[in-house]
Amino acid sequence: MVKYNPKIWFSIIFHSYSKHVLKTLLPALAMLAGFSAFVCYLILDYFAFQPHEFQGSTTVHSLLGIVLGLFLVFRTNSAYDRWWEGRRLWGGLVNSTRNLALKLNAYIEPQDLEERTWFAKMISNFIYATKESLRQGVQLSELDPPHETFLQELKAVKHKPNNIVGQIYTRINTLYRAGKFTGDHLINVDKELKDFIDLMGACERIRNTPIPYSYSMFMKKFIFIYLVTLPFGFVTTFGYFTIATVILVAFILLSVELIGEEIEDPFGRDVNDLPTDELAKKIKDNVKEILSVR
Amino acid sequence: MVKYNPKIWFSIIFHSYSKHVLKTLLPALAMLAGFSAFVCYLILDYFAFQPHEFQGSTTVHSLLGIVLGLFLVFRTNSAYDRWWEGRRLWGGLVNSTRNLALKLNAYIEPQDLEERTWFAKMISNFIYATKESLRQGVQLSELDPPHETFLQELKAVKHKPNNIVGQIYTRINTLYRAGKFTGDHLINVDKELKDFIDLMGACERIRNTPIPYSYSMFMKKFIFIYLVTLPFGFVTTFGYFTIATVILVAFILLSVELIGEEIEDPFGRDVNDLPTDELAKKIKDNVKEILSVR
Amino acid sequence: MVKYNPKIWFSIIFHSYSKHVLKTLLPALAMLAGFSAFVCYLILDYFAFQPHEFQGSTTVHSLLGIVLGLFLVFRTNSAYDRWWEGRRLWGGLVNSTRNLALKLNAYIEPQDLEERTWFAKMISNFIYATKESLRQGVQLSELDPPHETFLQELKAVKHKPNNIVGQIYTRINTLYRAGKFTGDHLINVDKELKDFIDLMGACERIRNTPIPYSYSMFMKKFIFIYLVTLPFGFVTTFGYFTIATVILVAFILLSVELIGEEIEDPFGRDVNDLPTDELAKKIKDNVKEILSVR
Amino acid sequence: MVKYNPKIWFSIIFHSYSKHVLKTLLPALAMLAGFSAFVCYLILDYFAFQPHEFQGSTTVHSLLGIVLGLFLVFRTNSAYDRWWEGRRLWGGLVNSTRNLALKLNAYIEPQDLEERTWFAKMISNFIYATKESLRQGVQLSELDPPHETFLQELKAVKHKPNNIVGQIYTRINTLYRAGKFTGDHLINVDKELKDFIDLMGACERIRNTPIPYSYSMFMKKFIFIYLVTLPFGFVTTFGYFTIATVILVAFILLSVELIGEEIEDPFGRDVNDLPTDELAKKIKDNVKEILSVR
Amino acid sequence: MVKYNPKIWFSIIFHSYSKHVLKTLLPALAMLAGFSAFVCYLILDYFAFQPHEFQGSTTVHSLLGIVLGLFLVFRTNSAYDRWWEGRRLWGGLVNSTRNLALKLNAYIEPQDLEERTWFAKMISNFIYATKESLRQGVQLSELDPPHETFLQELKAVKHKPNNIVGQIYTRINTLYRAGKFTGDHLINVDKELKDFIDLMGACERIRNTPIPYSYSMFMKKFIFIYLVTLPFGFVTTFGYFTIATVILVAFILLSVELIGEEIEDPFGRDVNDLPTDELAKKIKDNVKEILSVR
Repeated sequence: MVKYNPKIWFSIIFHSYSKHVLKTLLPALAMLAGFSAFVCYLILDYFAFQPHEFQGSTTVHSLLGIVLGLFLVFRTNSAYDRWWEGRRLWGGLVNSTRNLALKLNAYIEPQDLEERTWFAKMISNFIYATKESLRQGVQLSELDPPHETFLQELKAVKHKPNNIVGQIYTRINTLYRAGKFTGDHLINVDKELKDFIDLMGACERIRNTPIPYSYSMFMKKFIFIYLVTLPFGFVTTFGYFTIATVILVAFILLSVELIGEEIEDPFGRDVNDLPTDELAKKIKDNVKEILSVR
Repeated sequence: MVKYNPKIWFSIIFHSYSKHVLKTLLPALAMLAGFSAFVCYLILDYFAFQPHEFQGSTTVHSLLGIVLGLFLVFRTNSAYDRWWEGRRLWGGLVNSTRNLALKLNAYIEPQDLEERTWFAKMISNFIYATKESLRQGVQLSELDPPHETFLQELKAVKHKPNNIVGQIYTRINTLYRAGKFTGDHLINVDKELKDFIDLMGACERIRNTPIPYSYSMFMKKFIFIYLVTLPFGFVTTFGYFTIATVILVAFILLSVELIGEEIEDPFGRDVNDLPTDELAKKIKDNVKEILSVR
Repeated sequence: MVKYNPKIWFSIIFHSYSKHVLKTLLPALAMLAGFSAFVCYLILDYFAFQPHEFQGSTTVHSLLGIVLGLFLVFRTNSAYDRWWEGRRLWGGLVNSTRNLALKLNAYIEPQDLEERTWFAKMISNFIYATKESLRQGVQLSELDPPHETFLQELKAVKHKPNNIVGQIYTRINTLYRAGKFTGDHLINVDKELKDFIDLMGACERIRNTPIPYSYSMFMKKFIFIYLVTLPFGFVTTFGYFTIATVILVAFILLSVELIGEEIEDPFGRDVNDLPTDELAKKIKDNVKEILSVR
Repeated sequence: MVKYNPKIWFSIIFHSYSKHVLKTLLPALAMLAGFSAFVCYLILDYFAFQPHEFQGSTTVHSLLGIVLGLFLVFRTNSAYDRWWEGRRLWGGLVNSTRNLALKLNAYIEPQDLEERTWFAKMISNFIYATKESLRQGVQLSELDPPHETFLQELKAVKHKPNNIVGQIYTRINTLYRAGKFTGDHLINVDKELKDFIDLMGACERIRNTPIPYSYSMFMKKFIFIYLVTLPFGFVTTFGYFTIATVILVAFILLSVELIGEEIEDPFGRDVNDLPTDELAKKIKDNVKEILSVR
Repeated sequence: MVKYNPKIWFSIIFHSYSKHVLKTLLPALAMLAGFSAFVCYLILDYFAFQPHEFQGSTTVHSLLGIVLGLFLVFRTNSAYDRWWEGRRLWGGLVNSTRNLALKLNAYIEPQDLEERTWFAKMISNFIYATKESLRQGVQLSELDPPHETFLQELKAVKHKPNNIVGQIYTRINTLYRAGKFTGDHLINVDKELKDFIDLMGACERIRNTPIPYSYSMFMKKFIFIYLVTLPFGFVTTFGYFTIATVILVAFILLSVELIGEEIEDPFGRDVNDLPTDELAKKIKDNVKEILSVR
């Protein structure tokens, strides 16, 4: 995630990310410019049509342009909703890890360092495992093993975050059966562990489910058809200025589509993705501080 | 559900699904093309109206086009919301099955394999029964009977997923009455079973309730009237180019409507439907792994 | 609620409901046609204004038309939200009645048929009472009295669904006091009864609260003014074709408004209303099957 | 709140409230009419500009008009959301008072009239106190004192609804400590009391937080600038008809803004406000009936 | 937060805040005016292009203007949602502090002033610490130490609000272990403390996560490109009036963007920010009154 001051326009417009966007769009823009020039030449010079033969054609593109604009806003909106929901879920993970740590801190004796360390490590492990399972797969090297065989045992497991939460559930139940936790403690702690699984599952949902294929395809086809027919519609009105106009319109439409694509899957390492590495670190520090574990 | 890379335009625009859409729309587009040609001939050649007699008529279609665009976005939006809610619900099923399995894993003795196997089978059975009850009806062959007479007993029942959850509820209450589960366990497990029923019921709601009839009808009538009057509005401005224009506009409007229809009921087996088969398989594997059952 | 196949356009556009809409709108459309004809005659023939005196007036109606379109979509949207919320609430009733029945089934001895029958009847009675209290008032004949004086006692009560839930609450508390239900059972069952009241209350809210008066009035006034001024704006551009244009625009605007009105109160017996009779029947069957009561 | 039949257009458009709106807007409309007339005179007669000097100026106002329309819909939308949220909250109060009464009815002995009367009075008192604390301040005369010194004690308290809920909380805890309520009862009743405070607090939030100042100001400035520049833009196209056009546009824009303002604070006594007096009465009757108290 | 009467237009439009906006936008408006003048001079006088060479160019800016308007409304909408969510969260803090105080008031003996004072101070401390941790950092001077070493101990802690809630959790658990609170009390109180952490965490989420960088950049680039190309598009139609038109359009577009920026982070001390200082004071007074602590 880029940190930026939203009030300084200049630095934003000429930011390096801006160049990245331009570079991505350049081939498409170049092709459209060439195509437009070709269409202009064909119609204005080769066939030399008279204006009244194409007159008023901007009407159709105006109308379709507005409809396309509506769809782009809808598409942008739903991509943003996914991104923001991803952020809410990670905010939820911050909250429920804090809550679990705070409750454990109150229920476990201050001097029982072994228990405290175990929970502090395992809560962080859950977060780090979740973070990477939303990318290419859990990085075992990021985890902090609470006992020696932990990593080996985990390697054999398919769904690693599930397994870690399972160990926490079992440990708490053991404390309960041993009389160290009362039933009321068990009920209070249960809410947080349920949240762990629910929040992780919701992240997996966003990660594994792109916008329906037919929408995505329709948007791209609509933009494609719109831009390809644009020079025909504008050529008699604008003459050779059509080329600049097409580039301008194409730049805006393709930018929006590009933003939508970049934001749809917010758990990666792109410029616009959520700072999950940072959040995982923050959670780890919070949990340790709360449980008074170094 | 089609898996696709949203960043590769070319393969998306010329994907086989694209041909499927074209094939579906072809009859309508052909009829409109013929109709437009007929109108053009009638007005331009047969009656040979002068432009000033139909002048400016594009205004009305511009205005109505924008209003129609607004309604199409609204319609697309609400179809997408249904689809996405369906996905949330199945995400919820992933979460609550995991949670139930994790809790049972903590509460049931590790060596009590009979109990563990029973629950693993029944949780999966609930999911598989739900999945197909949202299509044509529960497929008994997909279920994994925990005891011999299970399938026969289930055959006699009308609402099969209800019955399966009922058996789980009863089994847990029996464990509670026998003192194997405490009251606190009962309370914690109850949340997940409630979620089972709530999520399944919400899926049934989406499946059984299309968009209100009058909306659906209005959209279709509006598009129909719009397209049929379009050649009259455009003919004096565009001449015989009207035919191409009408096809372009029709293609876009009908595509949107088609997408809305396809996405509305997301639990089937269409290209755009949710991957519930895959999710059911994933849940089964998760539950088995969590409960350490082969 | 009309059942329909959204993919068959033809049968939808020429459905009998379509005629119903047309019949409702006919007087207004006829009056507008007459008024437009009168305006056309006045301006084109009686006063015989020259075009340049009214030139460009379509601009204002284009602009206002788009603004009006935005408001109609907003209005449609909020009417649809009410309708869909109504559906969610009834879906919620399906879920919570199922959950309550499933829990009672697990907690009550299988052979205690008296208790089971009492609850099965009373849960259904609650649903049937709610269904009609959202229309003209509870139909006592639809209820299934669990004891002889039940209907007479209920007749004396003002808010009947409240009373039925109250009896269920009391019965469960009696079972609890008698030691047949444990405290954990009481807590688990309490969630469903709370849902009963919350869902019923939310239905009453939708039923008793139309869209704010000033909005409803503003929409109608805006449409009225728009349609009445429309012939003045279009007459010089379209000549006598103005009449057809006004009818087309009026048909679309009034249809949308009509749909909004029909869907706003979704608990009645109109074509577009929710199938609450069907849902109540379904709930009754579900509950009986779950509690193994004939 | 005005009760009305949304299907009778005539009575709605010429309703007395309509006159109230007109009266409020009249000064502004009159001023704008005068200003437009002055601009028309200046440009058409005094300076007698030629059309080509101002040609096409309607473009800018068309464009800005649509943008303004979008913002007005957004503003209307968010005002409506506040109004509807207010309604949901009061619906929530109906529900949670019913639930509390139903639970108390089940848990308290039928013959313990003193306890029942106390709770019936105090629940109603909470609602009546909340209702008026959302206006100018609690009306002590509306309350029903459960003991003699109640009103005097309450007078000394700043936040009266808080205090009433506090007394209910304490009374229930006393019953619990005395063994009349079990712990399970306490847990079940706690949900409703929590809802009391949450719902009241949410009402206070809506009441105390208008739309951000900068939005409100921006909307008014935008409308003001738009209307004041409108005659300059339209004068060459419409001539003296500009005056009528400006009034028409102004009427629509100002009406929308007015509606937004009226609905924003839904707890007062305006025509469009929520019927909280009626709801409070309904709650009182419900609670009394449920607890069998006269 | 500015308090204002939304019905008095005059005072709002000419409010001092209005001057503040103008001052912020002045440099940009001045530059655009200069640039437009330069473009006009170049095209009208220096090169003296004929109208037909640039004819109709307003079409593109009309179209793009509407698309830009759609995006601005979307941007405004999402900024407002953040602001309003911030307000909901603080409303939630008001509610959960009240609820906790009310429950403690019921559960703690009236004469146990020490306990009451401790909780009253610590709840307020949590709010004051949260308030400032959403700005530059916790102001220790604002806190009310319940024991002498409190502030010193807190200074050593990184996340101060967490620590304060941790102390409350622990204190309540101690009361529970000592038998002063029952398990039912513990469960009821737990909900409120969970809310404390969840609400604070959600505020941190809003504060730390601006709108995605690529959106923010795109909006600014779009506005920039639009305004810079505007004079070219309008010059042949409006002549030197182009300058006024560009300023008008720029003022509106930049105002909207400015509002979005100001409202995005609602926890600061700007004119449009939430009155968190006032709310913290209100919570402190409420809690003290409820717990009968001076």
